[in-house]
Order: sequence, then structure tokens, then C-alpha cells
Amino acid sequence: MDYTSILRNASRTSLTPSAALLEHLVPLFKHDDYIGWSGFTGIGYPKTLPTAIADDIESRNLQADPSTKKRFNLFVGASVGPEVEDRWAALDMIARRYPHQVGKEVAKGINAGRIEFADKHLSMFPQDLTYGYYNLHKIHGERSKPLDWAIVEATAINSEGHIVPGASVGATPEILQSAAKIIIEVNTHRIGSTAIPVDPDRVAAIIETHKPDNTGSSTPENDESRAIARHLINFLEREVGEGRLPKSLLPLQSGIGNVANSIIGGLAEGPFDNVQVWTEVLQDTFLRPDGFDHFYKKWTNYKDRLLLRSQQVANSPEIIRRMGIIAMNTPLEVDIYGHVNSTNALGSRMLNGLGGSADFLRNAKISIMHTPSTRPSKNDPTGISCIVPFASHVDQTEHDLDVVVTEQGLADVRGLSPRERAKVIIEKCAHPDYKDLLREYYDRALHECMKRGAGHEPHMLRNAFKFHTNFLEHGHMKVRSWD
Amino acid sequence: MDYTSILRNASRTSLTPSAALLEHLVPLFKHDDYIGWSGFTGIGYPKTLPTAIADDIESRNLQADPSTKKRFNLFVGASVGPEVEDRWAALDMIARRYPHQVGKEVAKGINAGRIEFADKHLSMFPQDLTYGYYNLHKIHGERSKPLDWAIVEATAINSEGHIVPGASVGATPEILQSAAKIIIEVNTHRIGSTAIPVDPDRVAAIIETHKPDNTGSSTPENDESRAIARHLINFLEREVGEGRLPKSLLPLQSGIGNVANSIIGGLAEGPFDNVQVWTEVLQDTFLRPDGFDHFYKKWTNYKDRLLLRSQQVANSPEIIRRMGIIAMNTPLEVDIYGHVNSTNALGSRMLNGLGGSADFLRNAKISIMHTPSTRPSKNDPTGISCIVPFASHVDQTEHDLDVVVTEQGLADVRGLSPRERAKVIIEKCAHPDYKDLLREYYDRALHECMKRGAGHEPHMLRNAFKFHTNFLEHGHMKVRSWD
Repeated sequence: MDYTSILRNASRTSLTPSAALLEHLVPLFKHDDYIGWSGFTGIGYPKTLPTAIADDIESRNLQADPSTKKRFNLFVGASVGPEVEDRWAALDMIARRYPHQVGKEVAKGINAGRIEFADKHLSMFPQDLTYGYYNLHKIHGERSKPLDWAIVEATAINSEGHIVPGASVGATPEILQSAAKIIIEVNTHRIGSTAIPVDPDRVAAIIETHKPDNTGSSTPENDESRAIARHLINFLEREVGEGRLPKSLLPLQSGIGNVANSIIGGLAEGPFDNVQVWTEVLQDTFLRPDGFDHFYKKWTNYKDRLLLRSQQVANSPEIIRRMGIIAMNTPLEVDIYGHVNSTNALGSRMLNGLGGSADFLRNAKISIMHTPSTRPSKNDPTGISCIVPFASHVDQTEHDLDVVVTEQGLADVRGLSPRERAKVIIEKCAHPDYKDLLREYYDRALHECMKRGAGHEPHMLRNAFKFHTNFLEHGHMKVRSWD
Repeated sequence: MDYTSILRNASRTSLTPSAALLEHLVPLFKHDDYIGWSGFTGIGYPKTLPTAIADDIESRNLQADPSTKKRFNLFVGASVGPEVEDRWAALDMIARRYPHQVGKEVAKGINAGRIEFADKHLSMFPQDLTYGYYNLHKIHGERSKPLDWAIVEATAINSEGHIVPGASVGATPEILQSAAKIIIEVNTHRIGSTAIPVDPDRVAAIIETHKPDNTGSSTPENDESRAIARHLINFLEREVGEGRLPKSLLPLQSGIGNVANSIIGGLAEGPFDNVQVWTEVLQDTFLRPDGFDHFYKKWTNYKDRLLLRSQQVANSPEIIRRMGIIAMNTPLEVDIYGHVNSTNALGSRMLNGLGGSADFLRNAKISIMHTPSTRPSKNDPTGISCIVPFASHVDQTEHDLDVVVTEQGLADVRGLSPRERAKVIIEKCAHPDYKDLLREYYDRALHECMKRGAGHEPHMLRNAFKFHTNFLEHGHMKVRSWD
């Protein structure tokens, strides 16, 4: 395709074979540059140029010497494929990564203090980027634009010179808007439909590529995930029965993982009709039995039933609240009063980040957290309780949660006060190995707090994290005593 | 006024002098009834009938005997005057109180475990009420309607039979919608302008009254509040200077209290033009020098510059986010990573409740928390640090906060990662009496967490609440050592 006739400044760009083009582009990326990529949850991210930059750095061993070392500030709507993002982290090429990430090497860099990471609601990130909040402290590069570079993947560039994104929109419109210079990777692996306007004066290059997204594989369902799904489907059936939900339910948001898969599978077998989905990520469970293969084969059937929006819309509090979404997500841990830790193990170790969970949880009509009641630790198959006295990090508050469900049962805490919630969550959701411990924590906390007229949300602060400190010392959360 | 000609069923209602009418109405309120009142932050609540019910219970000493005792479930948009709400609490007439409260006796009842209280975002409460979330567990009374009774104050009833609210709208539309039976107190103390439609079949009575709202007096400004305001005004000036805010700023939301007063006063003296306000509460500081007296005297000047909305609108995430509000509120404590406790002292003792703080903080363009760096305890004038290692209750998360300001200085944490935030918050905002303690907590936590590759948000969980447990033991937060 002759992009030069489309983009006025295409004379500056080269359409020579990739190797030569990449050789020209790679050195343009300087240490400390602020770079935005397209991409959202492993879809639609640039693959060619980021790989070429990493190849260059690795082959010339630039990171070994502080004078040649390159570290970049990386901004992407959500996560991207590990072969680029995680590789950049492994090569210590990431100084800063906002607002989300998935990948062992990135997480390792964050938790080792090498990567500055700020976890932000996905709906807010594009706004804050355009507000200029992320270049407040920027030292080098173009200071009037939040980003020095945008590298975005497109399926095509249309006749108006607008960029046609692939299977994700994410923060791409705002990243394009915020960048001093733009590089477009035209990926013809898949063809999309609508387009993002772009200022041709800022387009520095267009790269042609044909690599698929690397989305990883999903965890298989198991008895536990099926038990959780069963409790949840029963709950939704009761809501329909009592007239609080229609038979078509309300638009569903579903997180990622095997519980989400079991729920979606269970919904398909349940007595629900014409169920709609409004979610930041479409999992292939929604497209059973053959997932996305089937989807792309039957493209003409599906294309009018699916609409992609940018994350500022998909995760918008406004829209989530107006539509009355049923939101379902997986936490790390939930405390007995309904506070949720979605991000930091033992309060400090970042896993993936908040993502859209709080956008949905806060604004949904029914806010559901589903989790196994325990997870295995190294020395104990039920060494980690997902129901704890006090969440070691709080991403979503008691003010947002409606339902907690584990394989043990479902706690409907709508309309309950904290003391009422504690009882229901412990009785319905905690694992038998932890139920007595949690009951005793609550009873003792209640007794102590009542004595000093402070019993709204009873806690023994000296013991609030004893599950966690016990784990740090003994490798499991089974505390011997509360004394 | 002949309301009988307006409300079809007014034949059921009596317009005989209040004493006889009240005598007829009071016994209709049964133990365990679900009751909604109009009112928002001490404005526009019913005064006559709630007082009559309390008088009856007190004079007949009904609460002394379990068989005659009456306890009600009370739902009001936000807080109401203490002469009714707090009196009900003092008489142990409140079994349940959602979603907000202000008053010593109510707080005492909550913290003593006599009153079930669920703290809810003000924008969500009316929705959740109409969704039926609050009558899920209701046993007695009308189960198809969330509320057995609505008692609402009106300024008038218009010719269509719609209710004209006074100086607050709050959750009144939804409370009217949700109630099996409605009683209207027509208060002619002030006259409003628009009206809420109401089903005349559900109107059980109309009461005429003439009592003013009891809003309480506001804390006077002092050096501390003026220092905080100065830092904040300087910050806003810089934002204007750097082109991130226009000279008219953006619509302001301001909480209640002396810091809010100093800020509003400071803004008036600053270089800003045509500043607008979008807030859940209009304080009389906005109307200097004579506040509401001046306001009502100059009613014709002001009436076209002010619009009252229901709390579902005033606190709407959608509107707050679209307008790019500058939100300013007072927390109990802020932790070094930017988590905020707005409600529970030492994690357990409820003060007033969340109110709209999280609606605004989450969705504002600039989310500001202002607080003195310390508060006095019984034995130490700086015994309580408002900057703590770990918030003992989290109402707003690190994902929402942009700016923290104390009389010591202002921390602009926009775009910063948690480790960067900790340094700025400690250095700029902590009181000198606590700065070294907080630095040492952070340094030790960083060292320990880095060792185990868990340094995203460094904490020593065993010491995370040591400020608080030290306070419980010694009456101040000045911990001797972190060992």
C-alpha cells in the first residue's frame, strides 16, 4: 500500500524493507525517553520496533556500561505481550511503567525497585496522561508533550490518513494525542474497522509487520472454579427470581482466569437469555467452543455484535454506572469487612496491578469478587487464606463491594453494616482451616473495641496483619494464637 | 393553604392543628419500621414529626421495657440536625442508620454496637436504595417497598401535587419513590423553586411547621488552617502559570471545616477570576462576609446563580469527571503512599462517615486532601500524626490521590510511584516531631522488602500500625523504636 500518498509527511518516512528502516529508527530512542505504545491486555501492541530496540541493546551489550545504558519510561493502556514488555524489563530497559503491567520480569523489576510503577485506574490513565500529570517531573526530551514517542500498531491507515487500530483501542487515541513523534506499525495480521485521526506532521515512520499478538494461554477450569461459578449462578438465578434482575441479566463484566471461565461457561448453561457483555477484555470463553479461531472464521456473523471502545469509555464510571453492570473480578485477598487487595501480596509485592477492577467494582450495580478461599503455600496446601482480618493492601474499599464468593459459599453483603458483613463473610466464604481463627479474631476485636466505644469496625490493630506476619515467618497463615 | 384540593387523598390527611395531627401520626410508627427522611448535611430535614415521636417515646418511657421499646431503621441522604437525629440516637431509637451521620450520640451508638451503620458513597446510596439492596434483610413492614415511611420536608406543594423541596434535595426523590407511605412537613421558613413529583395515594399526612435548620457553627480559622490554605493557593497559582488550569480554575468542590473556610477565603483574595463551585454542600464562607444571612437578604441577586441538585447528581462520578472538578477534603489520616482514612479513628471508631469524599476524590481532575500534620492528644499537643505509615482504615486509595497538603507543605504526588510518593509526603507534609520516625519506617521497610524482591510498596507489616498501637498504649504516636 502506498502510505506516502496518504500521509503528507511520508517523505520523511521510509518504506524500504524493515531491516534498513529499523536500523534508522532504533538509534533515535534516547535514554530516559517517554514512550507510549498502543496495546491493551496483550492485544494490539507494537511488536517490531520494540523488539528491534531490544535486539540492538542486547547485541551491543549497551546495558553493561552506565554511559551507554538506555532506560525508557513506558506508557501503555494496559499490558502487552511478554516478548516485548517482559524482554525490555529483563534487559533493564524500563525506568518507569504506567499504569498497568503483566509479566514476571516487569514485576520483578518493580519489586526490586528498579522500575517505578504507578498503579492507576484504567479509565483515568488516558485522562491523566493528557492532563500532563505524567510529565510533571520529566527532565529530558520534549517537555511540552507528555510523550517523546508513540509507537502504535495499526491494521491500516485509511484514506483520510487516520489510523485503523487492531483488536484493541485502549489508550491509543490519547497516546497519539500526547506524543511529539509517532511511529506506526502497520500489522496486516488482522483487519479492523474504524480509525483514529493522527497528525501527519508528527509521524516519523511507518513499519510494516505481520506478527500475531501473544496473549498467553488461560488457566484450566477445576473443581474449585466450578464450585465458585455454581454459587454465583445460583445467586444470579435468585436475583432474577426476586425481580431484581431481568432474565437477560444486565451487561456483564468479567475478569480473566479460570473462575471467570467457569462462570461464563455456567452462564451459558443457566436459564438466562440474550445476555450482554460490557467488558474491558473479551476472553475466548465467551466464544465457545473454539474461542477466537471460531470467531475469526465466523467473522461475518460476529462483526456486527461486537464494538471496541477506548479504555476511557470501556472503563468509564459514567457508563458502568448508567448501564448497571454486573462486575466480577478476582482479588488477592478480601478482609472480613469487605476491603479488597487486588495488587500487592503481603502489602508490598506488586503482581499485575489494579487494571479496571476498581472502575468496575466502584460503579457496578452488583460488585462481585470471586476467589478460592485459600491458596497453597510452599509448605501447606491451604497455607494462604484469601479471607483475612485486614487486607494488607486496599485497592477497593468496603464501600464498593456487594458480593464475595469462594468455593465455600457466597456472602451477599449488600445493605449490611461492617459487623454484619464480618459474620457473613467468615461463615460463608472462609475455608474451614481458617474459620475459627477468623471468628476468634472478630470476637476478640469486638470485645476490645466495644470496651472503648469504638466498635464500628472492630479490629485488634496489633494483630491485624498476624495472618501475614505468620506467613512471612512460618510459610503459612495458620496463627497459633491471638495473644 | 388548602392542600386538600391539591393532593387527591388529602381527605385521609388532617390539617387540624399540629398537636392533634401528631397525636394521630406518632403511634403509626412501629418498632423496626424502615424510615426515610429528606435532608442533606443538616439542611431540609423533617423536624416536627421526628421530634414528636421522640417526645412520645421519652414521656412514656417506652425504651425502658423491651416489650414497648421502639427502634427504627433510618435512611437519610446525609446528615440532619442533631436535635432530631442525635436525640433519636440518645433515646436508642435507631437500629440502623445509612449512609451517613453526624452527631455525637449517633457515633456513640454506632461504636457501641447498638446502631448498624453502613458507610456508602453518597452518589450510590439513592441508587442502592431503589435497587432494593437495603430491604433485602427486612423482616417486618411492607417488603415490596424499601421503606415503610418517607418523612420529607417541603417548602410547598405545587399545583400539580409535586413537592417543592427546601434548601437540600439529597436523596429525597429516591426516598419518596421508595416509600410505602409518605408524610410531608410543609416548612414555610424558606421558599425554594422546583418540585418533586409524588404519588398522592401514598401521602399519609401533611404537617405544617416553621422551624429553621440546625446546621451548627463552623470551626474558626487559625494559623494552621491559613498556612494550609496558603500552600494550596500557591499550588493553584502555579497550575495556572503552567497552563494546566485556566484563571477561572475549574469548578471547586470543598469539604467542611476551618481549612475549607481558609481556602475559600484565600481564593477570593487570589488572582483567580470567575471561579465556579460544584459541591455537595455550600458553606457560608462562599458568601462572605455575612454568609447565609446576606444570601437570603440578597436572594434576588443570588437565586439565578445557584442550582440545587439531588445527591445522585451532585456527587455523580460522571459529572465530577466530565467537569474536571478540583476536589478538596479533610481526612483523618493519610499514609506515606497516599491511602486515606476518612472515617474510622484507630481503624474502628466511626466519626462521621465517608460522605461524598470518595465520589469526588476518585473522579476529580485534581484530588486534594488537606489536614493539619498533627492533632493534639490528651497528653501531647502533637500526639497524633496525620501522616502515618499505614492508614488504619482505607476509604480512598493511593490510586485516587493527587495532592496532600498540611501546614508544613504540599506534596504533589501526581505521576509518582509509591516509593517516590513516600519520600515527598514525608518530606513535605509530616510534622517535624514525626519526620524522622517516618523516614526510618520507610528506610527499614524498603531494606527488608528489597531483600525479598517485594519492594513496590515497602512495608513492615508487623510495625505498620505501631503509631496507632503506641497511641492506644501511651496516648501519643511517638514510637520509641521500630525494633
